[in-house]
Amino acid sequence: MSIDGKLSLFGVNPKKEERHNDNKTTSSAVTIRGVLTSLKENLNEKDKRPVIHLGHGDPSAFPCFRTSTVAEDAVVDALRTAHYNCYSPTFGVPSARRGIADYLNRDLPYKLSPEDVYLTLGCSQAIEISLSVLARPGANILIPRPGYPLYEIHAAGSNNNLEARHYDLLPEKRWEVDLDGVEALADENTVAIVIINPGNPCGNVFSYQHLQKIARTARNLGIIVIADEVYNHLAFGSTPYVPMGVFGSIVPVISLGSISKRWIVPGWRLGWLVTSDPNGILQNSGFVDSIKGCLNAASHPVTFIQAAVPRIVDETNEAFFAKIIGLLKETADICYERIKEIPCLTCPVKPQGAMFVMVKLNVSMLEDIGDDLEFCLKLAKEESVIILPGRTVGMKNWLRIAFAAEPATLEDGLGRIKAFCQRHAKKQ
Amino acid sequence: MSIDGKLSLFGVNPKKEERHNDNKTTSSAVTIRGVLTSLKENLNEKDKRPVIHLGHGDPSAFPCFRTSTVAEDAVVDALRTAHYNCYSPTFGVPSARRGIADYLNRDLPYKLSPEDVYLTLGCSQAIEISLSVLARPGANILIPRPGYPLYEIHAAGSNNNLEARHYDLLPEKRWEVDLDGVEALADENTVAIVIINPGNPCGNVFSYQHLQKIARTARNLGIIVIADEVYNHLAFGSTPYVPMGVFGSIVPVISLGSISKRWIVPGWRLGWLVTSDPNGILQNSGFVDSIKGCLNAASHPVTFIQAAVPRIVDETNEAFFAKIIGLLKETADICYERIKEIPCLTCPVKPQGAMFVMVKLNVSMLEDIGDDLEFCLKLAKEESVIILPGRTVGMKNWLRIAFAAEPATLEDGLGRIKAFCQRHAKKQ
Repeated sequence: MSIDGKLSLFGVNPKKEERHNDNKTTSSAVTIRGVLTSLKENLNEKDKRPVIHLGHGDPSAFPCFRTSTVAEDAVVDALRTAHYNCYSPTFGVPSARRGIADYLNRDLPYKLSPEDVYLTLGCSQAIEISLSVLARPGANILIPRPGYPLYEIHAAGSNNNLEARHYDLLPEKRWEVDLDGVEALADENTVAIVIINPGNPCGNVFSYQHLQKIARTARNLGIIVIADEVYNHLAFGSTPYVPMGVFGSIVPVISLGSISKRWIVPGWRLGWLVTSDPNGILQNSGFVDSIKGCLNAASHPVTFIQAAVPRIVDETNEAFFAKIIGLLKETADICYERIKEIPCLTCPVKPQGAMFVMVKLNVSMLEDIGDDLEFCLKLAKEESVIILPGRTVGMKNWLRIAFAAEPATLEDGLGRIKAFCQRHAKKQ
Repeated sequence: MSIDGKLSLFGVNPKKEERHNDNKTTSSAVTIRGVLTSLKENLNEKDKRPVIHLGHGDPSAFPCFRTSTVAEDAVVDALRTAHYNCYSPTFGVPSARRGIADYLNRDLPYKLSPEDVYLTLGCSQAIEISLSVLARPGANILIPRPGYPLYEIHAAGSNNNLEARHYDLLPEKRWEVDLDGVEALADENTVAIVIINPGNPCGNVFSYQHLQKIARTARNLGIIVIADEVYNHLAFGSTPYVPMGVFGSIVPVISLGSISKRWIVPGWRLGWLVTSDPNGILQNSGFVDSIKGCLNAASHPVTFIQAAVPRIVDETNEAFFAKIIGLLKETADICYERIKEIPCLTCPVKPQGAMFVMVKLNVSMLEDIGDDLEFCLKLAKEESVIILPGRTVGMKNWLRIAFAAEPATLEDGLGRIKAFCQRHAKKQ
């Protein structure tokens, strides 16, 4: 058979397409990355104004959000030793595992050991590994709506051995978990509940009391908690950030984190998966062995960046953190106030953490815009502003706006959104 | 149900174990990483001599194998700009894709465009992605024996939609591909043949004529060629290195590479997948779209390391490459000559490339050693020398020795192996 004849099968082989629908390829349609790419393709090149990106949690392009000098120096110095050009140890450079354990121990009532810490390629690989080791035929996992699409993608990617079930976050309750809904949703095949705190996409921060209720609910259901804390410590409202690991003695917790957000270095790909489990239940259940098995065949974070971790977490000064928190608070306030001036948009809660706010879109007030996706596509084309349609994170006719931007740029972007909404408003 | 009761299921759930046997977890038993780990656990702490690692292709720990100053400077400068702390573009930083295209074009009869280049987390992710997009129910792929275990692992990991079939490399023919065997092995469901050149684990380098024969055989079978060229340009014998892409007009080639080996920086995790396909068959077949879909949901190489790629490939001077090639030639010679002195070991071909040699073990000449694994375990325990049992790369009762080491250390290691063999030799 000729190559052309045979290879041409690949494109149209229905079995293969079906596999891809369950698996990797078509996830391009549901990843935030994929949606933002299609929005950018809708930009109008004739618009001479700068494009304003309020679509993702990466403000590193703005000089005011530049990472700490200590972090840069630590990476440069680790590289210059030439001791860290080698392959990484399977679970991470020992000094980095200890560094992360010490860093997290500052906020815990018990002590993590370095052996509880596994370094990963950002938080994304930590998500992939935790879902992969939980997957088994018939199992299901509870994930938040609105939430972060990577959880659906990796649940579907685990040979379809993990059904994603969605519980609600309640806007009228400051985006708290609908715990009654969680109890109704869970059954004997439920293995875990995922929480994201501080919250993406809602910008909420769970209180100590609410986290405790989540822990007790999980304990009663006999499931573990996966706590996505990639935005850890990015809380600037009245509710302080509390890591879920604080309740590790009530229920086993898999804590996922990264330096990507607090240090504004998502491109460094340095994250972690931590078993916050003082009772050793995950160890005894074989869960830890499964994690180790996954890591044996996985790629690992860049070795010299790992070697820089102890200095990054120890020596970054408070002034840097205070500056970032101050900027996030300032931009969250700007975002909240400007949205109030736009009739067709409603922001149920002022964001208290992370880098995002969820905004309700009232399409009935708009003349020629049918839904959130059309809103974002036309906004990109007419105003060169990129924001994320809510459907991407599970809520149709909502919008996710990333306010982490240079304040003047954010003002400009929100002004363009206001002009856009006025232009498309129904005439009375 | 109690957490303990429920979680304890995880460890023993047979379905789950079965899944893992087909999938990730138990690959720890077959990855080179996993085998080396178990050998290290067999080391004797009472032995005061330094441990000598001849088990893997990573000489970066030896000062004589330190990477080029240009490469270090390029990475430091890219980091210091603070322009590359952001997330990576999905397919890689444009200047890096162009840099790799230009780098590879030096050796090709046609011109790759930057759009043919996809940056990956080392060569490992390039292997995973190429197998993942080829997988479909019933499909099979031809991989070399001896070979590199990651191909079996990712074939098995692709929802078991890719059967790995092994063709032989022929020691009596300088480890050339058994092309008659390949033709006998292939059927209408065969989608690709994998070649590794320069060769891991054999240290062979395919000639232009042999590569041309492989291309024509693949063309006749209607399959594509995946050319693993992670050791590209590391050829120091009489046969020059020729990239498989040279024959891209005969058959579509997926070329996999990395800076890990030529620049001795495996911990930087910077590799690539390139479609060497001047006739656009892969584009038209939907293969390229599948690659893009995979990358949309994948992790990407560290952005500032990508940004350093153009300088790394343009400005590294010939003296550095000449030094590395000289060291590899010297250590290959040492290895070949010393093994000649050991009766129970036979080296069929002097290595001409990469960092390894395959050595046949004659266990019948040894008193109390049953096979290659026992040989390596006892060698680690008694002599503090780590080498890889051949079964790990598909050939029982062979050994893979990595000669890429500081020459004096290599001499020491081979001396210990000789003493070990003498001590265990059958008495006449």
